[in-house]
Amino acid sequence: MKKEKLIEQIRQKESFLCIGLDTDATLIPKSLGKGPEAMLAFNKAMIDATLDLCVSYKINTAFYEAMGSEGWKVMEKTVAHIPESHFRIADAKRGDIGNTTQQYARAFFETMNFDAVTLHPYMGRDSIEPFLNHPDKWAIILALTSNPSAEDFETMELRHQEGRLYEQVIQKSATWGNTGNTMFVTGATRAEELTHIRKLAPDHFLLVPGVGTQGGSLEDVWKYGSNKECGLLVNVSRAIIYAGNDSDFAEKGRSAAQGYQTNMQSLLRHQA
Amino acid sequence: MKKEKLIEQIRQKESFLCIGLDTDATLIPKSLGKGPEAMLAFNKAMIDATLDLCVSYKINTAFYEAMGSEGWKVMEKTVAHIPESHFRIADAKRGDIGNTTQQYARAFFETMNFDAVTLHPYMGRDSIEPFLNHPDKWAIILALTSNPSAEDFETMELRHQEGRLYEQVIQKSATWGNTGNTMFVTGATRAEELTHIRKLAPDHFLLVPGVGTQGGSLEDVWKYGSNKECGLLVNVSRAIIYAGNDSDFAEKGRSAAQGYQTNMQSLLRHQA
Repeated sequence: MKKEKLIEQIRQKESFLCIGLDTDATLIPKSLGKGPEAMLAFNKAMIDATLDLCVSYKINTAFYEAMGSEGWKVMEKTVAHIPESHFRIADAKRGDIGNTTQQYARAFFETMNFDAVTLHPYMGRDSIEPFLNHPDKWAIILALTSNPSAEDFETMELRHQEGRLYEQVIQKSATWGNTGNTMFVTGATRAEELTHIRKLAPDHFLLVPGVGTQGGSLEDVWKYGSNKECGLLVNVSRAIIYAGNDSDFAEKGRSAAQGYQTNMQSLLRHQA
Repeated sequence: MKKEKLIEQIRQKESFLCIGLDTDATLIPKSLGKGPEAMLAFNKAMIDATLDLCVSYKINTAFYEAMGSEGWKVMEKTVAHIPESHFRIADAKRGDIGNTTQQYARAFFETMNFDAVTLHPYMGRDSIEPFLNHPDKWAIILALTSNPSAEDFETMELRHQEGRLYEQVIQKSATWGNTGNTMFVTGATRAEELTHIRKLAPDHFLLVPGVGTQGGSLEDVWKYGSNKECGLLVNVSRAIIYAGNDSDFAEKGRSAAQGYQTNMQSLLRHQA
């Protein structure tokens, strides 16, 4: 997907919501049954119920891999069910040497039709670049993550460079691609850091997890992280997809998504 | 697998060879046919031909994911084909927040029966710990990788700590588990750095890729990286599995593996 199309979707829907399909087979409503078929039915119902409220879906590969090859098949069918109007993210957090990375790019961009993959920066440029060689596809690079132990390494200060490791990751990796094929992951649980991040990457889109169950504030993310094109995809997973746990799970999910969309609409209108 | 059993295997076979099954469906000998079935037949033949020469197999998940759910099934069947005498590594390079990491641990340690998974350290302790809670399973943490752009971030000097990022990764993460459930990835292409690494982690096993096609030297790895228990798993992928490309691919692979085993035997005997 081109950046212009993503921005157009955000304007049209007055939403920058990404819904995270972290579908845990053990948390699916009993009415759907069990196993991979139930997981797929759950995803399809959740997608169908929320299409007009979000601009993106993010599939967390771990939950599918936990179910083995049958789970992987559910992932394939889920991404195929998401219309092309929506930005399809594989939250796969991959990263390997060049010849291996080419295989990952093939898996997510060719064998499946994702628009973007999340990536670890640790191994440097040649672990990211093969993803940037696919037209209209995106690399979403981990910068400052939402988990408590992000402080173990990501926020360490460097000796010969200004600032901290995650800032150096943004500065360096921003030069490998451009604002039309690279995003950064920056957790909502550290919203005040978005000010620094916007100095380093004023025009990049940011994928922001951590709103919802993890406790990040949408208003703070907007205040410190938005730019003139919005520049944000805010992901909510559990607070939407597990809003209900009965046969009305899809309506409950829609209702939770509607809450986020309404707040986003008001933030976007206030700016315009 | 317990550390004692791994050491016993190394002594018995006089080998610390790990064979990397980076099986590229497009590079399989034509005599095997095409697609997932051919990939599985290739892997089984390569495993059967080399069992007595190596102590470990490493499956590079990217090559299987590139083939979709059918490829994932080949991975499941391949790991099931490797006997319990051998240390089974998923070279998956995962790393995510706690609740997601639990799913990855489930995928590789329960749904499949791997002994170990390679992991990115970037997100810190809570992205590694769920792997350490499985008895007799291992986390293999990326420290200094074999690719050229390892220099982008891994070797950066830190301000308030001694040394560089990868050294800090080893120092910190060595305290999360112990020498019976944690290894580090350290590339053979930077063998002289193994001296530093052995100061930080004298008793840990190191998984060393980069010998073979990537050009690292087995002798240097041994010289700078071995400890009294051997402490090394040296991985060779392409130089073994693509030693031949005709119907005698398994014999050619065995012959290449034999070459490495003979060198390892001589290094181990020289020490003893």
